[in-house]
Amino acid sequence: MSNLSQDIISNSGIKIFQDKELYSFNLDTILLYNFAKTVKKGKIVDLCAGNGAIGLSLASKTKAQIYLVELQEQLSRLAEKSVSENGLENQVEVINTDIKNIQDHIMHDSIDMLVCNPPYFTSKQTTLIKDNQVLAIARHELKTNINEVLYTIKVLLKENAHAYIVYRPDRLSDLFAGMSQNLLQAKRIRFVRSHANDDANLVLVDVIKTVKSASLRVEPDLIMYDGDNLSTEGKRIIDGE
Amino acid sequence: MSNLSQDIISNSGIKIFQDKELYSFNLDTILLYNFAKTVKKGKIVDLCAGNGAIGLSLASKTKAQIYLVELQEQLSRLAEKSVSENGLENQVEVINTDIKNIQDHIMHDSIDMLVCNPPYFTSKQTTLIKDNQVLAIARHELKTNINEVLYTIKVLLKENAHAYIVYRPDRLSDLFAGMSQNLLQAKRIRFVRSHANDDANLVLVDVIKTVKSASLRVEPDLIMYDGDNLSTEGKRIIDGE
Repeated sequence: MSNLSQDIISNSGIKIFQDKELYSFNLDTILLYNFAKTVKKGKIVDLCAGNGAIGLSLASKTKAQIYLVELQEQLSRLAEKSVSENGLENQVEVINTDIKNIQDHIMHDSIDMLVCNPPYFTSKQTTLIKDNQVLAIARHELKTNINEVLYTIKVLLKENAHAYIVYRPDRLSDLFAGMSQNLLQAKRIRFVRSHANDDANLVLVDVIKTVKSASLRVEPDLIMYDGDNLSTEGKRIIDGE
Repeated sequence: MSNLSQDIISNSGIKIFQDKELYSFNLDTILLYNFAKTVKKGKIVDLCAGNGAIGLSLASKTKAQIYLVELQEQLSRLAEKSVSENGLENQVEVINTDIKNIQDHIMHDSIDMLVCNPPYFTSKQTTLIKDNQVLAIARHELKTNINEVLYTIKVLLKENAHAYIVYRPDRLSDLFAGMSQNLLQAKRIRFVRSHANDDANLVLVDVIKTVKSASLRVEPDLIMYDGDNLSTEGKRIIDGE
């Protein structure tokens, strides 16, 4: 691990070990951390947790037990290092597993809240796959896909519990199709744009597991920049003010 | 018909007969007219056409044959009156039918472009159903539903042809679920808000009939007002400048 650094998300106070050569958290992570409405107790899962940046940071906001679920061993080890560094061994557990086997570790219908930053790109969108296998798996649907991720969310969540997902607008159709197959209803959706006049480059979705139909709110956009500078809200989120 | 008036959409020059007591076109109609990219020739369908406001106005932009498909006889008669008034008998045909029987009138896979302003509300959302049966049918899923509308769009469109739909954001999940069941891929989506900081109140969707997967663009929002006044774009669309 040749490029190790420590960072803090949005002034949470939690130190995150990163390896820029493997995979490091980025704007998506920070936005999802800020979008999620954190339960105060119970159990939280960070699915496809990577180095655990979101799940670990949530520890600053909640007394809930937090599970970081990550397939890749190198990223799981980084997450464990951060758990120790922050003295969170009693609250945060790293589960290094394929989500296909999640029920060997966590009981179905037992989770009160979930956050997920899934791989965005299909396995066909290979333009971004380079020599970095860890990054390729984190970003591309090589080992899982959005339907499996949504199925896993359905299995884990309690009825009426929320999941918060960050995704790419260009795959919104796949996301909605997968949700409707898995009893997941979008409740709140927010698009993120660099500037007000740009196409959206990210989407944040607040999802409920429910058999009832839910009415969806499309909230005001999150506009990150005002000209060349961060917007007021963009600055607030990144600085954690 | 006690409340008959004539109006023009976005400076199209086409006069539309309206009966405010039955159903009259509104902002949704004007926005869809402006969002749709009109084919220059071939065949266009306005599905759930009401008094035919969108389909008729498109005659100002194209030489294509235009079919206004409307279930309700009173609205179909109004549309026919507008066809005559504008001397468009050779270009525009009103088809007064239930969309279930559309193939008695129009051949499958024959349409080059379609516009649709479907009933927005489920039959359970009865708060807005009052004594006006014509309006109730136009706005609520009493005689059809979004899945049937999307199935009909799939049946009518040629492969790779576009449909333009205006809908309510709170039913976006139903719209996406229905599209994915009917080989329809959202290509372009635009949310409409009263003000930048309001939840979206309408959504415009550009859909392609294709078996291939399409990448979705979430375009910059259409913001109708700037404070108490129409925004520059809002004014341009409504005035047709």
